[in-house]
Amino acid sequence: MKNFEIPGHLEVKNGHLHIGGMDTVELAREYGTPLYITSEDRLRDNFGRFKKAFPDAHIYFAAKSNNNIVVQRILAREGAGADAFSDGEIYLARLAGIPPEKILFTGNSKTDAELEYAVNSGVMVSVDSHDELISLSGIASRLGKEVKIAFRVNPDVSADAHPKLATGLKTSKFGIPSQEIVSTYKKAKELPGVNPVGIHCHIGSQILEISPFAEAMSKMMDLVEAISGFIDLEFVDIGGGLGIPYQKDVRAPTPQDWADAVLPIFRERCAKLGINPELHIEPGRYITADTTILLAHVNTVKKAYKNFVGTDVGFNLLIRPAMYDSYHEVVVANKADGTAADTYTVVGPICETGDILAKDRKLPEIKKDDIIALLDAGAYGFCMSSQYVGRPRCAEVLVHEGKADLIRKRETYDDLLQNQIIPGRLL
Amino acid sequence: MKNFEIPGHLEVKNGHLHIGGMDTVELAREYGTPLYITSEDRLRDNFGRFKKAFPDAHIYFAAKSNNNIVVQRILAREGAGADAFSDGEIYLARLAGIPPEKILFTGNSKTDAELEYAVNSGVMVSVDSHDELISLSGIASRLGKEVKIAFRVNPDVSADAHPKLATGLKTSKFGIPSQEIVSTYKKAKELPGVNPVGIHCHIGSQILEISPFAEAMSKMMDLVEAISGFIDLEFVDIGGGLGIPYQKDVRAPTPQDWADAVLPIFRERCAKLGINPELHIEPGRYITADTTILLAHVNTVKKAYKNFVGTDVGFNLLIRPAMYDSYHEVVVANKADGTAADTYTVVGPICETGDILAKDRKLPEIKKDDIIALLDAGAYGFCMSSQYVGRPRCAEVLVHEGKADLIRKRETYDDLLQNQIIPGRLL
Repeated sequence: MKNFEIPGHLEVKNGHLHIGGMDTVELAREYGTPLYITSEDRLRDNFGRFKKAFPDAHIYFAAKSNNNIVVQRILAREGAGADAFSDGEIYLARLAGIPPEKILFTGNSKTDAELEYAVNSGVMVSVDSHDELISLSGIASRLGKEVKIAFRVNPDVSADAHPKLATGLKTSKFGIPSQEIVSTYKKAKELPGVNPVGIHCHIGSQILEISPFAEAMSKMMDLVEAISGFIDLEFVDIGGGLGIPYQKDVRAPTPQDWADAVLPIFRERCAKLGINPELHIEPGRYITADTTILLAHVNTVKKAYKNFVGTDVGFNLLIRPAMYDSYHEVVVANKADGTAADTYTVVGPICETGDILAKDRKLPEIKKDDIIALLDAGAYGFCMSSQYVGRPRCAEVLVHEGKADLIRKRETYDDLLQNQIIPGRLL
Repeated sequence: MKNFEIPGHLEVKNGHLHIGGMDTVELAREYGTPLYITSEDRLRDNFGRFKKAFPDAHIYFAAKSNNNIVVQRILAREGAGADAFSDGEIYLARLAGIPPEKILFTGNSKTDAELEYAVNSGVMVSVDSHDELISLSGIASRLGKEVKIAFRVNPDVSADAHPKLATGLKTSKFGIPSQEIVSTYKKAKELPGVNPVGIHCHIGSQILEISPFAEAMSKMMDLVEAISGFIDLEFVDIGGGLGIPYQKDVRAPTPQDWADAVLPIFRERCAKLGINPELHIEPGRYITADTTILLAHVNTVKKAYKNFVGTDVGFNLLIRPAMYDSYHEVVVANKADGTAADTYTVVGPICETGDILAKDRKLPEIKKDDIIALLDAGAYGFCMSSQYVGRPRCAEVLVHEGKADLIRKRETYDDLLQNQIIPGRLL
């Protein structure tokens, strides 16, 4: 057995890793590799955890973590709204069946075209800057519409996140500084086409401590107090950021821990102010990450300075280890109950030294044609994929009650040429 | 004027940045932003620099730096071969008109399917491991073919490259350790289907010193000497890696500097051994990087902790600054002869704090709707792009003698759904 507990929605049977009741080795044979496999049950369960912990809150799924249309349709049926970061994500969320009044268009740098698209779609907008407020007011007025807005505020909370992901520091590009909040809401009240009814923050991603969430909630309620005299507040959106235990021996907070830390503050402060706004939360990674594994085929095992396992999954398909030094648990899917025999570094087929999926892992003896499963690949996985080094992107499968559905076809060479045009003189 | 010399293929006229004789502000208006613009003349000139410096060498363009089909067709007409890192890159190089005998299939982790594709395509293969040698021999034999091979050797040379890009250290995943070279070539000679005729190395990328190239050349010739008694060597491939001056005040070596450092060693050692192999080089970045600029539209200017300029170019389109902390020179295209007025940090519309294109740059006063040009975006630019955060990928234009050709259409929302399939029960 591996040196961690295989999570509940994964199982080992006959030495093979299973997900959603399906044998991953069989799935690799049927659909080929690389292959993303998502468990529908786990997705619904994870969403359910937030519904249970935050019974009165509205859950706006952070589509950036995984904007697959099927994933979003499943969450839409569970009642999710969407935190959409672009016009494209509004489009996908609407196609997934999420009604516009449950979509918040977030984003720090929106084009006028995106704002117009948002206004016409009837979604709410989280405004990130004064420039954007003026643009949005002008666009909505021109279209004869009024759009419900929140402001993204920068609470200056330090969360123990990766420096590239800590979004709530005053040094970050996001949001309006706390000291400008009152004047900004006052200005918005005077402008046509915009109706300030919400307040929004987001302090970071993959946060493994609870205290920054409580601190942000308190700071948000200070701001709510400052504007509640002249703003009829409909919602307070505290963003997402709950981390997951990529390393299975790490203790990570649960949705319930998050709720326990922030709900008493929210309720007490609202009661004191005599207001009753909705609470919105925006979980992403926690809902999608552990629903999905990424299967890789072993092409070579090289005994050089280290034992390098060469696979067909490169950072074009899963960029997190190369970009953020992220850790993903590795299971040899066809030897899932094997005993660790040696130390391996699992790499991909990209022309960069940084194209390493997992460093120095103790694993059963690995041979060519073994199947490697990378766990917790459902968040910031396929959605960040590229065709770098001329590699068509891979297929995706949804598993549910012992059946598999292909939900994304594997790209072909032709997809590498998509939208390219050769001028006549170069034909 | 900016605090650096605008390179020769760029000009400032009427305050606007021009490339290939075209006004970039007009191009932004006509084709929209974000927009990659590539100068055909600069591409041909850069390739010509290598032809002049290495008159007898064969130039295998490193397609990974920019595998756009039009870029490759232009280089093919200039006489380039290709260093292809995947079956997809073989496909693109062949479509670009590069004959198979001028394509070397490199790569550290090739699938059996890729090897079969390579054998059927008639290209040469740079073999990275013993496992791969055995696979390739078996596949070629089964197909009744013989494939010309080189081995990628690991010379253990330390180049002053980014740690993620230094590929020639013994700790990297690439190549066969020097001490195994003789036995590996001997083994290859005995195997059917493979004919070892080349030797190959590549020590890294964006290298700004010349001495590592000379050191690698010497080490390669030591290995050549060790195998020349029993291998009839047709080529020595010393890879690429020549850096470019992203910061215009950095002194960077030229193709001629590289040639001056390595050609004497190559010629002298070959003469001593009485052999006459071809020399192959694999430049990529140096040929493509400065041919291309990336235009961004300014959506917002936010005066917060810093002056943040919010644009429509995120790391989904140019990942180098976010992934490698890379520097790209910035020009305000519509104020290209403006005087620096303030310090700005130029950011993109991606939901991560690390989505910064340029930090703390002294630039003319920037306002909403200005056009920003990111220079030197032709290498590891579009080819690493993704649809992250639901953003369709942008258009590309080729400029040549005062005319522009659209060479890649802008993606639409539909492209975000490409290849996705919704199971019937979720419709």
